[in-house]
Formats: sequence, C-alpha cells, structure tokens
Amino acid sequence: MEKLDKLYEGKAKKLYATDDPDVLWVEYMNQATAGNGAKKAQIDGKGSLNNRITSVIFDLLKARGVDSHFIDHISDTEQLVRRMDMYPLEIIMRNTAAGSFAQRYGVEEGTELKKPILEFCVKDDDLGDPFINDDGIVALGLASEDELAEISRQARAVNDALKDIFSKIDVQLVDFKIEEGKTSDGTILLADEITPDTCRLWDLKDGSGQIEHLDKDLFRRDLGNIIPAYEEILDRLTALANEEGVELR
Amino acid sequence: MEKLDKLYEGKAKKLYATDDPDVLWVEYMNQATAGNGAKKAQIDGKGSLNNRITSVIFDLLKARGVDSHFIDHISDTEQLVRRMDMYPLEIIMRNTAAGSFAQRYGVEEGTELKKPILEFCVKDDDLGDPFINDDGIVALGLASEDELAEISRQARAVNDALKDIFSKIDVQLVDFKIEEGKTSDGTILLADEITPDTCRLWDLKDGSGQIEHLDKDLFRRDLGNIIPAYEEILDRLTALANEEGVELR
Ligand SMILES: Nc1ncnc2c1ncn2[C@@H]1O[C@H](COP(=O)(O)OP(=O)(O)O)[C@@H](O)[C@H]1O
Ligand SMILES: Nc1ncnc2c1ncn2[C@@H]1O[C@H](COP(=O)(O)OP(=O)(O)O)[C@@H](O)[C@H]1O
Ligand SMILES: [Mg+2]
Ligand SMILES: [Mg+2]
Repeated sequence: MEKLDKLYEGKAKKLYATDDPDVLWVEYMNQATAGNGAKKAQIDGKGSLNNRITSVIFDLLKARGVDSHFIDHISDTEQLVRRMDMYPLEIIMRNTAAGSFAQRYGVEEGTELKKPILEFCVKDDDLGDPFINDDGIVALGLASEDELAEISRQARAVNDALKDIFSKIDVQLVDFKIEEGKTSDGTILLADEITPDTCRLWDLKDGSGQIEHLDKDLFRRDLGNIIPAYEEILDRLTALANEEGVELR
Repeated sequence: MEKLDKLYEGKAKKLYATDDPDVLWVEYMNQATAGNGAKKAQIDGKGSLNNRITSVIFDLLKARGVDSHFIDHISDTEQLVRRMDMYPLEIIMRNTAAGSFAQRYGVEEGTELKKPILEFCVKDDDLGDPFINDDGIVALGLASEDELAEISRQARAVNDALKDIFSKIDVQLVDFKIEEGKTSDGTILLADEITPDTCRLWDLKDGSGQIEHLDKDLFRRDLGNIIPAYEEILDRLTALANEEGVELR
C-alpha cells in the first residue's frame, strides 16, 4: 500500500490517499483540542495511544458483530481505513447526563438517564456544531430518511456493544460521539475513531465517590494529564481482548 | 361561570380558576415580550386581538376535525378553556426556514424545507427554552413515548389544517409554536394560543418581493406596529369563517 497525497488535516488526524481508491491512510496526531478548537495543545504520546485504542475497540466491536471502517494498524500513529463519504453529523449516544446535555437541561452530571439518548449535531465548526433533530436532518438533506434509520440503528448497536466492553473493564460509558459514512458500494458504516477523546469514561474501580475521569475531560477541564488515563484505558482494553481471544489487527 | 383565584400570570395571559375544576378563565393582556422577556412593551389592543384571533382559529380548526381546549369567547379579552396539565414543551412546526432555525443552521430565511420540521423545546425560561429531541423528552420524563407520539401526531395535524386555513387567506404559514396538555380524563389536547404572537405569517398578497410580516417579528425586529397586521389577520380569518359557514363561539 502506497501513501499518496494528503487529503485533509483535521483537529486530531491527517488523511492521505493511497493507491487503492477505497482505502485511506490515517495519521493520528498529538494535538488535543477542546471547545471547537478554542483550546489547543500538543501532548506527546496521544496520537500513538489513540491510534492503538481505537484499533482495539474496533476489533472488540467486530467480535461483537459491529463492523467499522478499520482495516489495519500499520504503525505507531498510522492505520488504514475504508474510504467513505462521511455524513456531516456528530452522532452522540448518552447513557448518563454529562457535559453539554447536563448543562442544557439543568440536570446534575452523573444522573442516570431512563433510556439511552441518541443526539445528532451538524458537523460544522463555523456553525458551532449545532444540535439537530431527525426532521431537520432529512429536511436539510444531510441524510435520507432510510439512511438516518440505519445510522440510528448502528449507533444504538455500537452503544450496546461498547457498554458491554467498558463494563467488563470496570469503566462507566457515560456518553460518546461517533461518525458514520458510506462506502463507494453504498454500505453505511461506523467510521472515524472511538477513543478517550470521543467518549466520556469514568473509572468504576475508584472507590472515592468522586468521578475519576479517564477521558478528554481531564484536558477540557484542566483536571490533569491525559496520558496515564489513556494508558490505563488501553491496558484494560488489551487485557480484555486477550481474555476474549480477540486477535488484534 | 364564576371567576375565582388567579392561578398564574405569564408573559401574555393570566389564568384564573372557576367554580368548575375542569375550566379555566383566561385573560389576554396587552403585554408583548421577545427574547425570553428581555424586550417588553404594552401595546394597546393586542390582548383583545389575540383573544379574538385564537378563538377564530380554534373554531376553524374544529371545523377541520382538530380539537382544542377552547370553550368560549366571553369578553373582549377573556375566554374559557378546558383546564389541562400542560406538558413543559414548546412544540414548533416549521414549513419554511426562519428565525432560530435559519440562524442555527446557516440557512437563508425563506428557504422552503423539504418537509415540515417538528421541533421541541423545554418550556423553561431559566434554561432559555432549550431545544430537545424525542429521546431527551422521554429520558427526562417530560412525556412518555406514547404521549409524545400522540403530541407529534396532533402537531402535524394542526400544521396541515393551519396551512389550509392560511393559504385560503393568502398568508404563508412559515412556522408556529403550540402547547399541549392533558385533561383530567387523560385526553391529550391542543391548548394555549395560536396567534400572530406564536406564528410566523408572511403576506402573500404583497407583490413587492420583500417579506411582509403579519406577526410578532414586527415587534421582535422593530419593523413596525403590530396592531394593523394583527387586525388584517383577524379580518381575513373572520371573512374565511363566514365564507365557510363556521359559527364562531
Ligand atoms: N473512513 C473515513 N473516510 C473518509 N473520511 C473519514 C473517515 N473516517 C473519518 N473521516 C473524517 O476524517 C476527519 C478526521 O480527522 P479529525 O482530525 O478528527 O477531523 P475534525 O477536526 O474534522 O474532526 C474527519 O473529518 C472525519 O469526518
Ligand atoms: N388549557 C390550559 N390549562 C392550563 N394551563 C394552560 C392552558 N393553556 C395554556 N396554559 C398555560 O398558561 C400559560 C399561558 O400564559 P402565557 O402568558 O402564555 O405564559 P408563558 O409566559 O408561560 O408562556 C402558559 O404557561 C401555558 O402553558
Ligand atoms: Mg474529529
Ligand atoms: Mg405563552
């Protein structure tokens, strides 16, 4: 596989074309951002950790029947993925009230939700990633009714599988953001990344009664260094994969 | 019917108990507000016009098979309605992009939507009436899944009927806000008011190519006096009711 032109540089990753039109070369950077890029830092080791974590998670998901764009982990900071046309949507699943949800509705962070909440935001930095509902998505042509139904089905399936995975490593899956796209043959598939950058993960091993964040809130809220937390997540996930006999790509 | 204790004074109306526990006495005030009460004025004649307009609209809706809380128009500024337990929701239907929707998604005001959009906001001035989706409503216990399905069905039925009504008086129904409640016998029903305070109404008679607002945007955006516009809406609605032989309560 040959690495060709850079197609896109985002806040956390660079995308390159390859000699296969259906395959992208992804490089995970050390950059951390929060508040739509308002806060920014370079954190040594982050790119490598996220590249590894999302790969293990995609493998654990696959073992649970949930497919993704992930093809192969090819170096410390690089992986190959299936090239997709992305839906301009941030797809958010919430199991516990936190972050913008808790703030928006005046609900205390940590409140269990009666049922998982699926939310969509338009992925558009200039608009500040505005919240949108199903009618809005279809009316603005961001996805068709059928595509949206499939995206929603997959998001709930990802949540079920991730809840299973994280409960097995004593981590509370509070909420997470995914992205979905469509391959050249029309398959709708989970894409982008699933890492402590894109999930809220609370340590259940900690008995202090205080929330122990193992995710990007450490950076967002200046609570501490993210690296030991991300390493802890990777170690526990890797141990789970070994335990389950899941072969890691 | 006897008017008893004042139960509530809102931004536009006062509610009183009556000797019938299932009936409320509503008084329409002259107060106009915008931006969640940030802008405020007393406008002579507004209470009387809105009391009349919403009564005529509820009658025209009834003639189209759409029920509401409306019982009777009893004086210039007063009406009787069925007392309900209100859902804490602002129920918004949009046919054309305008207002907060246009702003949120960077869509030009006046853009036709591919299909009508149903939106909900939590009715809570302190939180700034935040936008919420179906999952959120159920998870926060603002309505059950079944109640929400019925509310949504009614909102779309109200939109269909209102589009028919306004198209017959050469007015474009851009969007509107309704509220729904539940009677003591468990019936879910359209409540509150439908007036130029709660609808965006654009004059289709005006051939200038410019938007001619016949609604509260005149006040919100300092575009002119609302009274002649509200009178125009009332006159056209009354003429329609006469034409259709709808008896006005
Ligand atoms: N399989 C894929 N095919 C094409 N684009 C993808 C795929 N997976 C993720 N992307 C896109 O690649 C970019 C990832 O880079 P990132 O640094 O996260 O960008 P951003 O700052 O836009 O979130 C995102 O725009 C994402 O939508
Ligand atoms: N049939 C009804 N029974 C009980 N309450 C109602 C009914 N119809 C409307 N309401 C409530 O009465 C109040 C109307 O007064 P208004 O001045 O519009 O208040 P607000 O400023 O809260 O919108 C609203 O809180 C509305 O929810
Ligand atoms: Mg990203
Ligand atoms: Mg009101």
